[in-house]
Amino acid sequence: MKKLNVAVIGYGFMGRTHSNAFRQAPKFFSLPCEPVLKTVCARNAERGAAFAANWGFEKAVTDWREVVADKEIDLIDIASPNDTHCEIAVAAAKAGKMVMCEKPLGRNAAEARTMVDAVEAAGVPNSVWYNYRRIPAVTLAKQLIDEGRLGRIFHYRAKFLQDWTISADLPQGGEGLWRLDVAVAGSGVTGDLLAHCIDTAMWLNGGIEEVSAVTETFIKQRKHTLTGEVAPVGIDDASLFLARFNNGSLATFEATRYARGHKALYTLEINGEHASIFWDLHDLHRLQWFDHRDEGTLRGWRSLHITDRDHPYMGHWWVPGLQIGYEHSFIHQAADFLIAAGEGKSAQPTFRDGLATDLVTDAVLASAKNRTWEKVG
Amino acid sequence: MKKLNVAVIGYGFMGRTHSNAFRQAPKFFSLPCEPVLKTVCARNAERGAAFAANWGFEKAVTDWREVVADKEIDLIDIASPNDTHCEIAVAAAKAGKMVMCEKPLGRNAAEARTMVDAVEAAGVPNSVWYNYRRIPAVTLAKQLIDEGRLGRIFHYRAKFLQDWTISADLPQGGEGLWRLDVAVAGSGVTGDLLAHCIDTAMWLNGGIEEVSAVTETFIKQRKHTLTGEVAPVGIDDASLFLARFNNGSLATFEATRYARGHKALYTLEINGEHASIFWDLHDLHRLQWFDHRDEGTLRGWRSLHITDRDHPYMGHWWVPGLQIGYEHSFIHQAADFLIAAGEGKSAQPTFRDGLATDLVTDAVLASAKNRTWEKVG
Amino acid sequence: MKKLNVAVIGYGFMGRTHSNAFRQAPKFFSLPCEPVLKTVCARNAERGAAFAANWGFEKAVTDWREVVADKEIDLIDIASPNDTHCEIAVAAAKAGKMVMCEKPLGRNAAEARTMVDAVEAAGVPNSVWYNYRRIPAVTLAKQLIDEGRLGRIFHYRAKFLQDWTISADLPQGGEGLWRLDVAVAGSGVTGDLLAHCIDTAMWLNGGIEEVSAVTETFIKQRKHTLTGEVAPVGIDDASLFLARFNNGSLATFEATRYARGHKALYTLEINGEHASIFWDLHDLHRLQWFDHRDEGTLRGWRSLHITDRDHPYMGHWWVPGLQIGYEHSFIHQAADFLIAAGEGKSAQPTFRDGLATDLVTDAVLASAKNRTWEKVG
Amino acid sequence: MKKLNVAVIGYGFMGRTHSNAFRQAPKFFSLPCEPVLKTVCARNAERGAAFAANWGFEKAVTDWREVVADKEIDLIDIASPNDTHCEIAVAAAKAGKMVMCEKPLGRNAAEARTMVDAVEAAGVPNSVWYNYRRIPAVTLAKQLIDEGRLGRIFHYRAKFLQDWTISADLPQGGEGLWRLDVAVAGSGVTGDLLAHCIDTAMWLNGGIEEVSAVTETFIKQRKHTLTGEVAPVGIDDASLFLARFNNGSLATFEATRYARGHKALYTLEINGEHASIFWDLHDLHRLQWFDHRDEGTLRGWRSLHITDRDHPYMGHWWVPGLQIGYEHSFIHQAADFLIAAGEGKSAQPTFRDGLATDLVTDAVLASAKNRTWEKVG
Repeated sequence: MKKLNVAVIGYGFMGRTHSNAFRQAPKFFSLPCEPVLKTVCARNAERGAAFAANWGFEKAVTDWREVVADKEIDLIDIASPNDTHCEIAVAAAKAGKMVMCEKPLGRNAAEARTMVDAVEAAGVPNSVWYNYRRIPAVTLAKQLIDEGRLGRIFHYRAKFLQDWTISADLPQGGEGLWRLDVAVAGSGVTGDLLAHCIDTAMWLNGGIEEVSAVTETFIKQRKHTLTGEVAPVGIDDASLFLARFNNGSLATFEATRYARGHKALYTLEINGEHASIFWDLHDLHRLQWFDHRDEGTLRGWRSLHITDRDHPYMGHWWVPGLQIGYEHSFIHQAADFLIAAGEGKSAQPTFRDGLATDLVTDAVLASAKNRTWEKVG
Repeated sequence: MKKLNVAVIGYGFMGRTHSNAFRQAPKFFSLPCEPVLKTVCARNAERGAAFAANWGFEKAVTDWREVVADKEIDLIDIASPNDTHCEIAVAAAKAGKMVMCEKPLGRNAAEARTMVDAVEAAGVPNSVWYNYRRIPAVTLAKQLIDEGRLGRIFHYRAKFLQDWTISADLPQGGEGLWRLDVAVAGSGVTGDLLAHCIDTAMWLNGGIEEVSAVTETFIKQRKHTLTGEVAPVGIDDASLFLARFNNGSLATFEATRYARGHKALYTLEINGEHASIFWDLHDLHRLQWFDHRDEGTLRGWRSLHITDRDHPYMGHWWVPGLQIGYEHSFIHQAADFLIAAGEGKSAQPTFRDGLATDLVTDAVLASAKNRTWEKVG
Repeated sequence: MKKLNVAVIGYGFMGRTHSNAFRQAPKFFSLPCEPVLKTVCARNAERGAAFAANWGFEKAVTDWREVVADKEIDLIDIASPNDTHCEIAVAAAKAGKMVMCEKPLGRNAAEARTMVDAVEAAGVPNSVWYNYRRIPAVTLAKQLIDEGRLGRIFHYRAKFLQDWTISADLPQGGEGLWRLDVAVAGSGVTGDLLAHCIDTAMWLNGGIEEVSAVTETFIKQRKHTLTGEVAPVGIDDASLFLARFNNGSLATFEATRYARGHKALYTLEINGEHASIFWDLHDLHRLQWFDHRDEGTLRGWRSLHITDRDHPYMGHWWVPGLQIGYEHSFIHQAADFLIAAGEGKSAQPTFRDGLATDLVTDAVLASAKNRTWEKVG
Repeated sequence: MKKLNVAVIGYGFMGRTHSNAFRQAPKFFSLPCEPVLKTVCARNAERGAAFAANWGFEKAVTDWREVVADKEIDLIDIASPNDTHCEIAVAAAKAGKMVMCEKPLGRNAAEARTMVDAVEAAGVPNSVWYNYRRIPAVTLAKQLIDEGRLGRIFHYRAKFLQDWTISADLPQGGEGLWRLDVAVAGSGVTGDLLAHCIDTAMWLNGGIEEVSAVTETFIKQRKHTLTGEVAPVGIDDASLFLARFNNGSLATFEATRYARGHKALYTLEINGEHASIFWDLHDLHRLQWFDHRDEGTLRGWRSLHITDRDHPYMGHWWVPGLQIGYEHSFIHQAADFLIAAGEGKSAQPTFRDGLATDLVTDAVLASAKNRTWEKVG
């Protein structure tokens, strides 16, 4: 089978999920080419070597420019912190590489637009790792909506609740903590968590017209790991907004790292004229479905256990009743990308889709700053 | 409107639920007659007077024979401990009174049969307070099964779990504790809790053919409240049995007062060829319904929120979404009894139904004693 | 025991819940006086008479002024549509009657302020039927928060979702439909549903500083029952807002009658530094509790089954494991009011508390209209 | 790193889960040796070759004796149908290979005993793939019980419900259907599903003393795939039993393939004096925990989301809040086996543990046949 040489930039949490995805996809999906873990790029040489050894990369490098310059590399997968996305993606595209990028695409829409321009000018297959689209339950929700089963949509609501930064002792910046450093991350929960909610929302319910937002930084200063100094915290700890979609439906969105008791509670709900759907990441293998067309006395929310062979992606896994987990959403995206790339195409969400989300997060941050309703885009 | 004079025997927990039921039923249901709380009978005169004052009984007496002899009384409702049921019911029937009796009907089938003979010979309306039949969710289950929606039945399972007797310091006998005194109660959880499970099971799934049971008394002796002496405990603390129904389905039944974390967790499930039903008393206003005839990818357990106007009994209460509670099952039974009595009929479950349950509990206790499969009846 | 003569104005859904509350409260609570259902006031004489007969009122009248003028009446309970609250309450207070009023207090804060002034000038005990405060689970939440168990509060979120007005065929106005007539109701879901959410929220989490809201009327015109003409719909079908509380916490609020699958899903959640609480009306007998101080590997959301004797109000009802329902919140409020009135005091929420909620709903409607953040009050 | 050469016998559902486990274990766990997928043995040469190609086995053979004779093979992993387990395991042990075997160990205790004798005589590391022990939630349950947190145990209950054989059109025997062929499988749900329940139960709660069982074959004859003839069905479709454990606790066990609405609903519950635990396979990443020592008003079942770093095995995976799935239980067992094997030891459950389960399933089948209580062993 044809080989497709992959370089992964970054070796943190996302470096692991992506590497695992490329390793596992060919074992469970029929692919047009076999991904080869060729090179990992890590700023820290020692850790890069260990990561390469563990995951089976042929080599590790410390400068991503080496990878861009490497003729053997077909696909550059960016799994490094947000402030590196734009420069690497543009260079990779110019070098004619396929590009996959961890979300959010840019730290802001301006960066994202630059990236879109680069991949579209180069005509290279591209995709952003908004992995939650490929949780089978979420993919099924998409199918149900696309089939028109919900009728006119009235409401959408999403939230992403975590609680890992409540302690004032947690420092900002550095290894594993760059998400608290605004210079690296671009924003706080808006780009980290809301971006996921917005991406799924627009996939399921179309474009967002306008937003009214509020953000808060509950802990105003934290020690910075790199400098050792106590410094103001530049990110938003919480971000909430009201939205109106192009289809006239209304929405609430909320993300925070200060919701005690929730580790990664991404929930979404959509209410249509005929039916409603609810999903949450803490039980990602279930989808809640309510259909008003059911017989009157027997109407109720159905808890769909998304483990049957005819559920999206599930025919590739085990047998009915046996659930898969978080990492599988990445495996599905890797598989879909490789299939699309085999035909020279991008896999959704493309960089253009990633830009659309960044336009919303920009509007959210502007609205919170200006205390106004802001049009998107 | 025609009056129907009621005497309630007993003023404990069940005296309260029954009195409340007679008071509330006419406010929410259209009845052919108005129940009048005429007399309460309580062994303790002072408490009887207080009970009468609170609930609006016209008088309190201490000897149930007075009530039986009272020409004005139309209905005698037995809410006193199990060892009094048989004698009172027989006397009441002979006096031509309608009779309602708290469950279990007798301490054993022999007592129950005597009671059945008495009410049937007298031709008086009668009913046993197996109140769970009239939880709207359970009544709906009955309707669904009667409509044949489940197809051939393969399995039934029920359990009733409590944890209130785990402490070895709890005494047996006396006020509020007679359920631990075998002489008064007849048996432990078999007659107290399993009787409920069996009554509902046979209502929903037909007769039971044979059983294999095991019982246990975890705490072998307790101080007796009345004597002050430590005495052997005669009741069963836990009772479990396998059963085969006449329709060929298999079942497990279990009741205990030693299941930490459960206060009154009565659950039942029935699995048919086409559909399954699950209900539990801790969320009594919900019914779980699975229908295999639903479209493949959208099959799932539906959580029916039994609060709609077209759900059994619910049109008499509030508006959709607003739940009722435990006591309402008694109100429903009082209403149904009064409607049936208006036509000279009994309301299900009749004394004959109550006997059927006692025949099963007798078989369960015999099986546990003999370590054999026992035929019912 | 001392009698307290009650007149109920209105005989609709709320007339029933209030009448039942006054009837039931003395049976389950020890009260300083016995409420007597003296008079019901109903515009329709025939229905008023039937209502009086059913609930045991001594008489029915058609003009509320008769009740105000009646020397025998101690308490006037207003359960009629919103547009009648202010005039009746003011007259009742001036006549020296105790006053209870169904929520929202006024159609707007101006009306509410007039009512507050009247009862405070008259010095009469008063209360607004924000009944959800007295669902035992919600009362327990209040206790836990007051004990400081949550620490600093970061987030609050509430929603009240219904689906009963989705059909375009539903008319507005008239019997049972006045909630769709803006002239009578004052507003749509803002005053009807959000008012509940706001009342509980401020009880639990203190005052609201500012809001940013959006409202929508999804179905723009409906036939008016009284005129028979198709007319513009003046109420808000959905109302959503962001809020900042005085304590610095952030919130989302949402109410709608267009959320398919939800009948009366009022949910609330509060996230503090140490602990979080969640409650929903569809399982009103449960409270979800998360305490970060629990041992690390055993931290989890606890589903508290609020049926134990030491849970608020529950010692007055049945035994552990057996749930109560919606109507009991009214019984609790009637009991608390009668106890407070026995000492010449008001029971929370007072008219002043009701005004505080109307100030927020006014700010919500203004914000939605002006597309601005609005300060409350 | 040292290599450990693995041969997998069988290429069906279990062949896949085992192969994936050996591939993934070294990526997420620190192991003393690296497993190498050397040989797969498949009766069908073509399919074996495809399987080998997909999973990266160096070669495929059609006769397991080749593998036993292969000097390079260190570990023989038996994932073929039940009727092959004994002969292969004995030969492998005699050849000095480490042996892992899919459950149940033998078709009956006699076979299992032969296998135990063989591996113990040879002194080779061995293990049976009762994978559910290593679902992190189940492992945590084991830890909590071993720490004595539950106190005296009163009750255990387990069930394993499926619905895939309800259709009478389903044939027996052949590819993927050998579980319906009694000659191959040994028994029906008793060995297939109950064996899992029994293994976990004895791990958590100690040995079983005696059982009373009933089994049923609901569909008496099915076409046999291999012969094309309609033939009597020899397996048990459902198997239920009561049990008494050595510690005095009582239990119900049930397994069936006729429980409509359940795909693989393995549930277990254990009730102790102080605390109770519940788990179910359909939400395998959660554990329900009730601790009576919690403060009175705040006692409730905790839903533990088993995704934290300090939960068993979870530090090896993603971040808190992100769940793993079914296949991970096999990865954990592979890792634990390789670690134990590195020290020349077996990993639990050993063949001796597997024999203990077969002794119980033998007793269950005997009890069902004889309609008697049967002692285990």
